[in-house]
Amino acid sequence: MPALRAHNLAVSLDGYLAGPRQSLDTPLGVGGERLHGWAFATPSFQRMHGLPVTADGHDEVDERFIVRGDEGIGATVMGRNMFGPVRGPWEATPEGRAWTGWWGDEPPYHHPVFVLTHHPREPITMKGGTTFHFVTDGPEAALAQAVEAAAGLDVRIGGGADTVQQYLRAGLVDELHLAIAPVLLGGGERLFDHLDGGPAGLDVAEVVPSSTVTHVRLTRTPAWP
Amino acid sequence: MPALRAHNLAVSLDGYLAGPRQSLDTPLGVGGERLHGWAFATPSFQRMHGLPVTADGHDEVDERFIVRGDEGIGATVMGRNMFGPVRGPWEATPEGRAWTGWWGDEPPYHHPVFVLTHHPREPITMKGGTTFHFVTDGPEAALAQAVEAAAGLDVRIGGGADTVQQYLRAGLVDELHLAIAPVLLGGGERLFDHLDGGPAGLDVAEVVPSSTVTHVRLTRTPAWP
Repeated sequence: MPALRAHNLAVSLDGYLAGPRQSLDTPLGVGGERLHGWAFATPSFQRMHGLPVTADGHDEVDERFIVRGDEGIGATVMGRNMFGPVRGPWEATPEGRAWTGWWGDEPPYHHPVFVLTHHPREPITMKGGTTFHFVTDGPEAALAQAVEAAAGLDVRIGGGADTVQQYLRAGLVDELHLAIAPVLLGGGERLFDHLDGGPAGLDVAEVVPSSTVTHVRLTRTPAWP
Repeated sequence: MPALRAHNLAVSLDGYLAGPRQSLDTPLGVGGERLHGWAFATPSFQRMHGLPVTADGHDEVDERFIVRGDEGIGATVMGRNMFGPVRGPWEATPEGRAWTGWWGDEPPYHHPVFVLTHHPREPITMKGGTTFHFVTDGPEAALAQAVEAAAGLDVRIGGGADTVQQYLRAGLVDELHLAIAPVLLGGGERLFDHLDGGPAGLDVAEVVPSSTVTHVRLTRTPAWP
């Protein structure tokens, strides 16, 4: 059985995965981009997102975690709010075009992506192997489709907080990698919330400080020495 | 003006300062003691609490933070729940004795301690210079009394979460030192809660990983490079 993994979830000191008031101009919520500076600085993140690659200004530990987040992944599941700021039915944006994600013509996935939504929509095929599928029958159905699409590789949970929590509550997450950023957001989407007593079944496997964040890896099997 | 400082506040990965269901048997809430192993292992903590001092098994970074938490402190303010599990009026415990704190005859303070409570009580003088004063007219009154008693030294906020939050909301905290422990509690008292938009006015000054926890120091003046 392939594993369900979440990687490089940047969390503020006060526990938020994104700031408040997500919108077209603030896809990560107000202040949310402050959680991700360590990732933006890594060559692998830059390559994945088609940005100019800088050789320095990053931490090698961060680089390794960014690379690891992509290894062995055959499909991604994400929530509607991670896919975009559109709410309600899938209509054209005020600019008159259909919303196809935050990532331009060639998203950094290169595999099937399953977007949880209450509003049906036809799949969208993007450049570079990414296809967005819209799943209206719940997180377990989305996971089943993603497992099949991943064809033996692992499935990644992309986010946001609500989506991660749905899989945590269902006890389906095998690995959860957080990067605790030295930032206070004061509000937004909390990762460890609505969990009815916590992320049951997960335990700390590894804590790796970098010069920018504290990486924490939680897994289903306790491996903390 | 002396500073108002909180030190060595151990916080779980999911943001809790103490576990759920504090009682006589579980002063730190269920599972709460798992947050404090790093502190218990330090010689300074052991000396302060009259325990046998072990020379190894601790991290020197942790030891330095434990020492720093006591330096230059002339008085402590704490909440009723940190002082003890007694709720309601100050009557004798089921064992027939008056509650005088968790710390035995000689508490580790050696200075005046101001306990926030709704129930008046005469001061209690303990061995070693600790006097417990019970303050019924609110956190600002307790702080004013503590500042006077500290006679030029700083005032420490002892905890718990509710007490720290009262001073954070009032914008009175000058330094807040957290030790993020690789532990999930799943419930309890959250530190960064009820803050109406966060611990305003504080910023990350320092992040110091030890082999056991991640120390984070927040101060009023931004000093993060």
